Amino acid sequence: MECKKKGSCQLLSKIATNEQHGENSSYFDGWKAYDNDPFHPIRNPNGVIQMGLAENQLSFDMMEEWIRKHPKASICTSEGLNMFKYIANFQDYHGWADFKNALARFMGKIRGDRVSFDPDRIVLAGGATGASEIIMFCLADSGDAFLVPTPYYPAFDRDLKWRTGVQLLPVICNSSNNFMITKEALEEAYENAQKSNIKVKGVIIANPSNPLGTTVDKETQKMLVNFINDKQIHLVCDEIYSATVFRRPNFVSIAEIIQETECNRDLIHIIYSLSKDMGLPGFRVGVVYSYNDGVVNCGRKMSSFGLVSSQTQHLLASMLSDDEFIDEFLKENAKRIAERHFTFTKGLEEAGIKCLNSNAGLFCWMDLRPLLKEQTFDAEMELWRQIITDVKLNVSPGFSFHCVEPGWFRVCFANMDRETLDIALKRIKNFVKGAGKKKERKNSGKRIIFELVFQNEEDVTMKKHEFTKSYHANVMSPHSPISQSQGQDLIMIIKHDH
Amino acid sequence: MECKKKGSCQLLSKIATNEQHGENSSYFDGWKAYDNDPFHPIRNPNGVIQMGLAENQLSFDMMEEWIRKHPKASICTSEGLNMFKYIANFQDYHGWADFKNALARFMGKIRGDRVSFDPDRIVLAGGATGASEIIMFCLADSGDAFLVPTPYYPAFDRDLKWRTGVQLLPVICNSSNNFMITKEALEEAYENAQKSNIKVKGVIIANPSNPLGTTVDKETQKMLVNFINDKQIHLVCDEIYSATVFRRPNFVSIAEIIQETECNRDLIHIIYSLSKDMGLPGFRVGVVYSYNDGVVNCGRKMSSFGLVSSQTQHLLASMLSDDEFIDEFLKENAKRIAERHFTFTKGLEEAGIKCLNSNAGLFCWMDLRPLLKEQTFDAEMELWRQIITDVKLNVSPGFSFHCVEPGWFRVCFANMDRETLDIALKRIKNFVKGAGKKKERKNSGKRIIFELVFQNEEDVTMKKHEFTKSYHANVMSPHSPISQSQGQDLIMIIKHDH
Repeated sequence: MECKKKGSCQLLSKIATNEQHGENSSYFDGWKAYDNDPFHPIRNPNGVIQMGLAENQLSFDMMEEWIRKHPKASICTSEGLNMFKYIANFQDYHGWADFKNALARFMGKIRGDRVSFDPDRIVLAGGATGASEIIMFCLADSGDAFLVPTPYYPAFDRDLKWRTGVQLLPVICNSSNNFMITKEALEEAYENAQKSNIKVKGVIIANPSNPLGTTVDKETQKMLVNFINDKQIHLVCDEIYSATVFRRPNFVSIAEIIQETECNRDLIHIIYSLSKDMGLPGFRVGVVYSYNDGVVNCGRKMSSFGLVSSQTQHLLASMLSDDEFIDEFLKENAKRIAERHFTFTKGLEEAGIKCLNSNAGLFCWMDLRPLLKEQTFDAEMELWRQIITDVKLNVSPGFSFHCVEPGWFRVCFANMDRETLDIALKRIKNFVKGAGKKKERKNSGKRIIFELVFQNEEDVTMKKHEFTKSYHANVMSPHSPISQSQGQDLIMIIKHDH
Repeated sequence: MECKKKGSCQLLSKIATNEQHGENSSYFDGWKAYDNDPFHPIRNPNGVIQMGLAENQLSFDMMEEWIRKHPKASICTSEGLNMFKYIANFQDYHGWADFKNALARFMGKIRGDRVSFDPDRIVLAGGATGASEIIMFCLADSGDAFLVPTPYYPAFDRDLKWRTGVQLLPVICNSSNNFMITKEALEEAYENAQKSNIKVKGVIIANPSNPLGTTVDKETQKMLVNFINDKQIHLVCDEIYSATVFRRPNFVSIAEIIQETECNRDLIHIIYSLSKDMGLPGFRVGVVYSYNDGVVNCGRKMSSFGLVSSQTQHLLASMLSDDEFIDEFLKENAKRIAERHFTFTKGLEEAGIKCLNSNAGLFCWMDLRPLLKEQTFDAEMELWRQIITDVKLNVSPGFSFHCVEPGWFRVCFANMDRETLDIALKRIKNFVKGAGKKKERKNSGKRIIFELVFQNEEDVTMKKHEFTKSYHANVMSPHSPISQSQGQDLIMIIKHDH
């Protein structure tokens, strides 16, 4: 097996060279565009605004205040330094018991204490990234598959597939029913896998969904549990956005569903993290919570590869144990996300842009189908490049989320201050105005279409015929969120032109 | 592929069920014994003393003092809190630039600034555990092999093999030359692999060695570089104990060797960590330092699975950047390890126990071959269980380090205070005394042997014939460290009986 010819041997592994890390996705390309020319209100006011990062920067002041009041929680203050040695030395992959207890309580609180979590089932990992990979390593062999509803988080390709060799098979969701997961789509994906002789080991969903910002309703989750229970395959629920739910319908965790639904609990696993709900991505706290003892035991061993810094565990153990603080934090955090969401979507509406109706997350799923030159992913990419280059906003195209319909974009709104958000909104408005004018010139015979104002459901029905005649069919499918906007006015994109 | 029969499908992955995580090793069993009955000077004075953990608890006071004087280094003090938001949000897998700069300088300092490190080649990982797995994922495919000199760190089986599927093939080293790596042993391991049609992708060594506590000399490293360069395979040097070298010969890093030796630098990689050298295992700082751009790029992406908490990066960036402090710390730390090593080995000598002559590490490689009932691993296990159960010390048997000679044990001496060490030494002395008495009764006809006192090399030679006649041959091989103890008295184990 020796390498005889110079350069004939592959020095690195297949994993290192297979480009399956997913970073060639436009999702990450957009980040690079931002990195090369980052917006700054004074130093670089024409730079790219980062709207591709689902960060929660809305509630740091509360944490800062708590830290100021609790110097003992840190091993780096004179009040807490006596714990330095003990904490710096702590490396047990079971995790710091106080921290896991506090985490379990915190997870319960987010779910309105309708369900409780066993600290002994908490497996710590290096962020949701590490947790996601651990669960795949535990459940599936290389070549096995997980079904995942589209659109889904782009980095799933790295986190779930890259080093594990697990395949992700899409369960097709589309705007016709607001991207809800249907039994038919699940069955179809499963059957397709069987036809291709691929072993399906489970389904993974994100609830609340990234990028949709919607929660998965009870009925859908029960259907999912029945589906996986029938097949005796796993259900992994990524619930890392659980505390970002800012309005009704309330979040329902899979932990609640399995209290009501008969199933083999060995098949149920939750991924959690403090990166989104607490806004602490730098602290790298990930969790696998499994009802399967085997997964807990094995996952615990895998923790070794990405343990949470004990310095961080120690601090957060204190913070999360402060019931009064956490109750207030969760309430206020959700309120601030709601306000931010309202401001942002209202601004978009003023620009004539609709988003999928959402109740969670740190982003909107923005419908730019009316701005596409044609309903193709090439056109989506073209529009995206225009938004990056001309509008100087890094938003993430639906294609990178494996969305099957071109024209959707994820836009994050919680990773910046209000002033930056206003600038972003202004840029969007100007852009749409320009695009509208362009389109108006190009499609001058169809002008009336863009002046449509829906008043109510009847109005929609009445005008739809005329509308669809002159515009590409799948822009405004009868099931799209736009045509379904009940009782709301829909201001079309060139409304402001009049 | 559906699971028709109840229970006929394997729910979990092969990795989760293959028991290749290595935790069934006696190395970890000993930890469990300690966990079940941990020593405490007041609460549990007869408990198990943990001597199986290579921790450095000798220098925390210096770090504590530094932290007290530098409140701005922490984001949890009123002086540093203004950085909280920025740091808590920082999740770039490139790592915090200030931290990587400081790490690069620190690594240079340890090597006497004879070599410098490029911060851009530093890939951060979740401890050496995460770093070791990353380098394997980058370099080898599942089924490929790395050669590793024995004895080696037991958790290599978990870190390097478990999830990667990479094989570890032993390069046999033994006490005949103080466990030095020879070209012959390397070639033999390589050829055996070829015969078995196994693709060898590289060699991994630990320098300083765990468990030997010895550094790898220049000539051996040059031989290794020539070996891997000839074969165009990789050389991974685990240098996580580099700052524990407490006496001559000095540590020589592979980074220095490749300055003097012609080779393809794409083949050279270093694993580093702050767990041993700084005594900060809880902080989970691991490093892959590679001279191969492909590995740096790919490893960086893999960082995502085990990023270092930004809270920790921020603190350590300040601490490691303080040249004056670090210079003093490295000097004083080595001095304290030297003192501890001296105290411990002197105590062992008084009990008639010799260790491999070492110059680094937080442990000794203790030669208990004279205490074995017979020179087998069964006897080693029996002795080990006796030490755990009766002597109540968790030491680690050579078998768990894949040592090919029974009777060697790794004993850690830096993870406890001086008082506990003294109790451990007392227990060892009492045990050897008891074992000696037992042995004396059993082997009463051979009593004279145990009364041997070596005065010098001539004395050894003279008495060796008589000695070896009446005792199992490989207990006292002519190359063993015992018979090689130049100019030192060797008090045999029942000397105190007289």
